[in-house]
Amino acid sequence: MSKYVFGVDVGGTTVKIGLFDDQGGILEKWEIKTNTAEEGSHILPDIAESLKAKMREKGLDRESVIGVGMGTPGSVSKDGVAYKAVNLGWDTLDIPEVMGGLMDKMPIRAGNDANVAALGEMWKGGGQGYDNLVLVTLGTGVGSGIIIEGRILTGANGAGGEIGHIHVKDGETQKCNCGNYGCLEQYTSATGIVRLATRKLQSTDRPSSLRGCHLSAKVVLDAVKAGDALAVEVAEQFGEILGKALSVTAGIVNPECFVIGGGVSRAGNILFDYIVPYYNETVFIGCQKAEFILATLGNDAGIYGAAKLILDYESGRS
Amino acid sequence: MSKYVFGVDVGGTTVKIGLFDDQGGILEKWEIKTNTAEEGSHILPDIAESLKAKMREKGLDRESVIGVGMGTPGSVSKDGVAYKAVNLGWDTLDIPEVMGGLMDKMPIRAGNDANVAALGEMWKGGGQGYDNLVLVTLGTGVGSGIIIEGRILTGANGAGGEIGHIHVKDGETQKCNCGNYGCLEQYTSATGIVRLATRKLQSTDRPSSLRGCHLSAKVVLDAVKAGDALAVEVAEQFGEILGKALSVTAGIVNPECFVIGGGVSRAGNILFDYIVPYYNETVFIGCQKAEFILATLGNDAGIYGAAKLILDYESGRS
Repeated sequence: MSKYVFGVDVGGTTVKIGLFDDQGGILEKWEIKTNTAEEGSHILPDIAESLKAKMREKGLDRESVIGVGMGTPGSVSKDGVAYKAVNLGWDTLDIPEVMGGLMDKMPIRAGNDANVAALGEMWKGGGQGYDNLVLVTLGTGVGSGIIIEGRILTGANGAGGEIGHIHVKDGETQKCNCGNYGCLEQYTSATGIVRLATRKLQSTDRPSSLRGCHLSAKVVLDAVKAGDALAVEVAEQFGEILGKALSVTAGIVNPECFVIGGGVSRAGNILFDYIVPYYNETVFIGCQKAEFILATLGNDAGIYGAAKLILDYESGRS
Repeated sequence: MSKYVFGVDVGGTTVKIGLFDDQGGILEKWEIKTNTAEEGSHILPDIAESLKAKMREKGLDRESVIGVGMGTPGSVSKDGVAYKAVNLGWDTLDIPEVMGGLMDKMPIRAGNDANVAALGEMWKGGGQGYDNLVLVTLGTGVGSGIIIEGRILTGANGAGGEIGHIHVKDGETQKCNCGNYGCLEQYTSATGIVRLATRKLQSTDRPSSLRGCHLSAKVVLDAVKAGDALAVEVAEQFGEILGKALSVTAGIVNPECFVIGGGVSRAGNILFDYIVPYYNETVFIGCQKAEFILATLGNDAGIYGAAKLILDYESGRS
């Protein structure tokens, strides 16, 4: 009998859901809206209803579904308890407990969305064939997930792999979303690149194709590709900060590869031209072999990783 | 029948050996010389001979010994293959294979000495009761080992937990032992503290009890305790560099605690007065709860951790 799993990626505006076979083949994917009203208390029931409707539609009985894996924002413990997922309205929520109750006691596993996405990129994305990797998602913020020997590095409070908020710069005057000053995210996210470019343009009168533009990370990186000198200097700043932060990360967890995803990564391999020299200059000799790879699953990394999470759990791997 | 394990800590001048019962009670410990002649080819045979002599002396037969755990310098893979342990003379050495051949096919496990020491401090030292910890050994160099969910974070090339060589300072002109410039070890080891103090004394004419002293980390830290203003400034520099490096480490692996060992840690809890404020200032909010604890096993951490390594392996934990 064929067996299936659901992979669920819960975001602040939409919930992405995938139905997978037990080899990771995706049969169908769809989205539902995230209803954050009433402290997010509708989110899990809405998801459960959508999963059950899909099971009816496909004629899948309880026994043919191995379980449900989920990725959610914020800190999530090894046991799947989410803490303070503020953009969902949740305070503390035992996801396997609640969701299991809604799904006829089906096995449920949950992890932090960035960590789960890293598992997805390892399984079916840019990190295939690797067992120790770091996914860095350069989007509005900087998300990150670390996989060690095929398993998510969750950490003591579910805050493992939060490299977007490691301190990389003293003297920063703007506050990061996390409340600190000088976090990696403030310089290497899409908004961080815009910040660097804005500061660069304000610091000099030199000409640049960026002047007068509505700045975005894409505009800046396109100008880099076109050879704009100021934009290239911004890319050097970006590359120095990120390259050194990843060399520090390598000295701590010694991954086989870094997988770079998120909107900024659409610029392609040119990013590595700016990151890797600073990485190589500062990294511990024993960690020099790490590969730099582009992520390939885009927004689907979360549902793939969530499916893998429950498959690993049921096979006793995690 | 009682069961026993050997824990072996291989250093550049001596090999420390402990005989333990399977609950971690230490029955006996002793040392032999490390013979690094002929590319270190005598080291494992010398150890095997010492272990067998102890077994004869104690009347222990092959069946009563569960196995041998070993910590060795340099990178050691998950499978116990040591790479380029230069101070032992080894190039690449499959320790379980070679040592197993010398010990009647007894189970053998090996890990990097700092990683194994971290396991020891978790099991019987300052980190008892914790499952996710970082051991930082402030000695001649800065050693470090990371334990995640009770297991050593080995990394892809056995270079996990090398936080002594993460890049913390730009513009350093002196080379670190690893070949890089600006590593944590250059400022926070015993020799690093002396470097900071020497630079501080040269940078000013202000009086200090340190002037004219033969500087050592102990001399500097004693002057800190006595309230010497320049020494206190050195302690601030030390604390800022180490506190920020540990906050970065926390953002990556999110430990429950940091256990601080090595000669410098003999200064006691006063170290934390200088480290923790910088840690708290920069650490990601989700990692703020980490405890700072002094190591308690001293030079025995390695033999305890080595014993735990083989016990975990034999019980299927690692």
